[in-house]
Amino acid sequence: MEYPALFLKRGEDARLKQGHVWVFSNEVDTARSPLNEFEPGERVAIVDASGRLIGLGYINPHALICARLLVRGAEHGIDRSLISHRLNVAASLRAMQYDEPYHRLVFGESDGLPGLVIDRFGPVLVGQIGTLGMEQLKPEIEAAIQKTLKPEVLVWKNQGSVRQLENLPEYVEVAIGSLPTTVIAREHGVDYAIDVEHGQKTGFFYDQRDNRGSLARLVDGKRVLDLFSYVGAWGLAAARFGASEVLAVDVSDAAVERVRANADRNGFADRVRAESADAFEFLKHLRQQRERFDVVIVDPPAFSKRKKDFAEARLAYRRINEMAMQVLARDGLLVSCSCSYHMPYSELISQINQGARHLDRQALVLKRLQQSADHPVVPAIPETEYLKGALLRVLPS
Amino acid sequence: MEYPALFLKRGEDARLKQGHVWVFSNEVDTARSPLNEFEPGERVAIVDASGRLIGLGYINPHALICARLLVRGAEHGIDRSLISHRLNVAASLRAMQYDEPYHRLVFGESDGLPGLVIDRFGPVLVGQIGTLGMEQLKPEIEAAIQKTLKPEVLVWKNQGSVRQLENLPEYVEVAIGSLPTTVIAREHGVDYAIDVEHGQKTGFFYDQRDNRGSLARLVDGKRVLDLFSYVGAWGLAAARFGASEVLAVDVSDAAVERVRANADRNGFADRVRAESADAFEFLKHLRQQRERFDVVIVDPPAFSKRKKDFAEARLAYRRINEMAMQVLARDGLLVSCSCSYHMPYSELISQINQGARHLDRQALVLKRLQQSADHPVVPAIPETEYLKGALLRVLPS
Repeated sequence: MEYPALFLKRGEDARLKQGHVWVFSNEVDTARSPLNEFEPGERVAIVDASGRLIGLGYINPHALICARLLVRGAEHGIDRSLISHRLNVAASLRAMQYDEPYHRLVFGESDGLPGLVIDRFGPVLVGQIGTLGMEQLKPEIEAAIQKTLKPEVLVWKNQGSVRQLENLPEYVEVAIGSLPTTVIAREHGVDYAIDVEHGQKTGFFYDQRDNRGSLARLVDGKRVLDLFSYVGAWGLAAARFGASEVLAVDVSDAAVERVRANADRNGFADRVRAESADAFEFLKHLRQQRERFDVVIVDPPAFSKRKKDFAEARLAYRRINEMAMQVLARDGLLVSCSCSYHMPYSELISQINQGARHLDRQALVLKRLQQSADHPVVPAIPETEYLKGALLRVLPS
Repeated sequence: MEYPALFLKRGEDARLKQGHVWVFSNEVDTARSPLNEFEPGERVAIVDASGRLIGLGYINPHALICARLLVRGAEHGIDRSLISHRLNVAASLRAMQYDEPYHRLVFGESDGLPGLVIDRFGPVLVGQIGTLGMEQLKPEIEAAIQKTLKPEVLVWKNQGSVRQLENLPEYVEVAIGSLPTTVIAREHGVDYAIDVEHGQKTGFFYDQRDNRGSLARLVDGKRVLDLFSYVGAWGLAAARFGASEVLAVDVSDAAVERVRANADRNGFADRVRAESADAFEFLKHLRQQRERFDVVIVDPPAFSKRKKDFAEARLAYRRINEMAMQVLARDGLLVSCSCSYHMPYSELISQINQGARHLDRQALVLKRLQQSADHPVVPAIPETEYLKGALLRVLPS
């Protein structure tokens, strides 16, 4: 198959050669390869200014990131066989890392499949396609998944704001098998019944698995507050690791119902409570009641989704963490995270530190937190690293 | 007790108020408090330009870092009682984290005891004093250790280049009890007989404990190369986690002897070999022999001890990692670390990535590595964060 050539301007190949895979529309030599002459979503050969092929990818002429590289050189075309190979490499990494089939199996660019995410929940795979180019490859992807992963069920959870950027419709579709009444995510020996269809993203956040594992030993016999709990994975991990009492708080009634059901399912109902409330308001209330917790977990949704929200988001992180420290017992532990790519670790820590100093306390970082190892980071693609946080001990000054 | 006042210039209190504890000599208002009027090592009251007390610390007028803050405000003097309190807080943190008495018990500034390090090897404590101020407080420190930690043995390993900066003599001294013939460090179920007297630092590096734990599962049945092995803690952890074959390399004959003895002690002698060689030379030799390893560990001593060595050090990290990747099997794992404060994580990763790209491979970060949680980081004291590294998978491009 002959792919039409997408020519880059001089010097615009440097980032790709370092290992990145994105081409921005302003990097294209539109005199040699006018963007409006490409079919949206079609496969292209990405070529540097001197005419040397960099590799093959796909294009969306209407998106800011107008092309993504799938394969370097031209030895392999973009077809079912390439996708199968990538799935096998991704699966071998997870098989090395995990005993059980509960993890992120494909993490887009990090697994050489930009625009594709797959989470594995036992026999059920939940996929998300984020780009037009990948959407066009959907038949090849399904065939490759069928061949290499042999799942009982494959659900496409093709929703979310990334699809809007690519002018893609949002839909949920069962592509292989039929969706069972109960889909389970298992983590640290706790089973979570998740809602694939209506839940956030694929229904569960494996990216915090390794971080939640850090609670082992530390929460034994402790009183734990889990803010922005979603389905309760931090709080239930704490219960699993011996917490005497867990209070989970989420603004969504549906999430709170899930926490209760999951506590019940795992035999933690006597130690886990869940409340539907805004975290900021709830912290104010707890402070007024002079409640104290040995461990407080602050794992909010991204306050900063776009770069221009940064200043406001920074203040929100400062405020929520300072409020959390106000209900923390002496020498207590604070777990604080940000899943916003635009909030660097250093900035998050600086806000926590300022909050601590304002309360005349000192925050000591015991461990820097990061996305789990099934969400690997490509050094040349900083966008693949988005989750950061810290486990801190908060002492009197 | 009345402490003489050390006045700071206007604005020079900002860093201290954020949580740092160092005063540089150029920050002192020498008109109000001439440095040569202080007794070297004496306790001082650190005061801002408007005459407000910041806290109490100690001074060395001849050092670049001329004073360090030990306590904020003036409620507590600097005495045995303060040191006992700090030791108790530090010990409670480790008791929460670890089942066994093998860890760093005091990590200087991070435990509110700047200039003091204590490692715990079961009944034996090995301490290091790095500043004149702490050396002056040695009687109070010993009394506080006796009272709060009740060790069978306390050894002062007062050596190293930091002491030269403070014009302190180097010596080893047994302050409590008597040094047993064999001192043991235990980590991940492996026992290491260490050489307190002649070994590096306190004799063992607990700072890599949590990172070495990352090898679990990943090295099972694998062939592992441990470069700059010292007493073999990476290699023996790999053996413990099921590696089929481990080759440890260190330039020091004494270290290589220790690796062999420790392999023997733990029943790994059939799977662990140790060679005395320069790592760069040895890698060249392995490449010529077409040897391949599934896992290569690169944990060198600091190539960059001073900021001015940075450019040269960066090249050394690039070179050693590229050479390591040349003996790595397809889809193999690279563990690469730097314990140099002057080598930022981003720079280390960039060098590894450049090495990979040069070999037409791609390096994928599965996990960012960091110093163990018994070496906590103070957000306002960047100098407390020195160890960084990554666990990477190296794939064909």
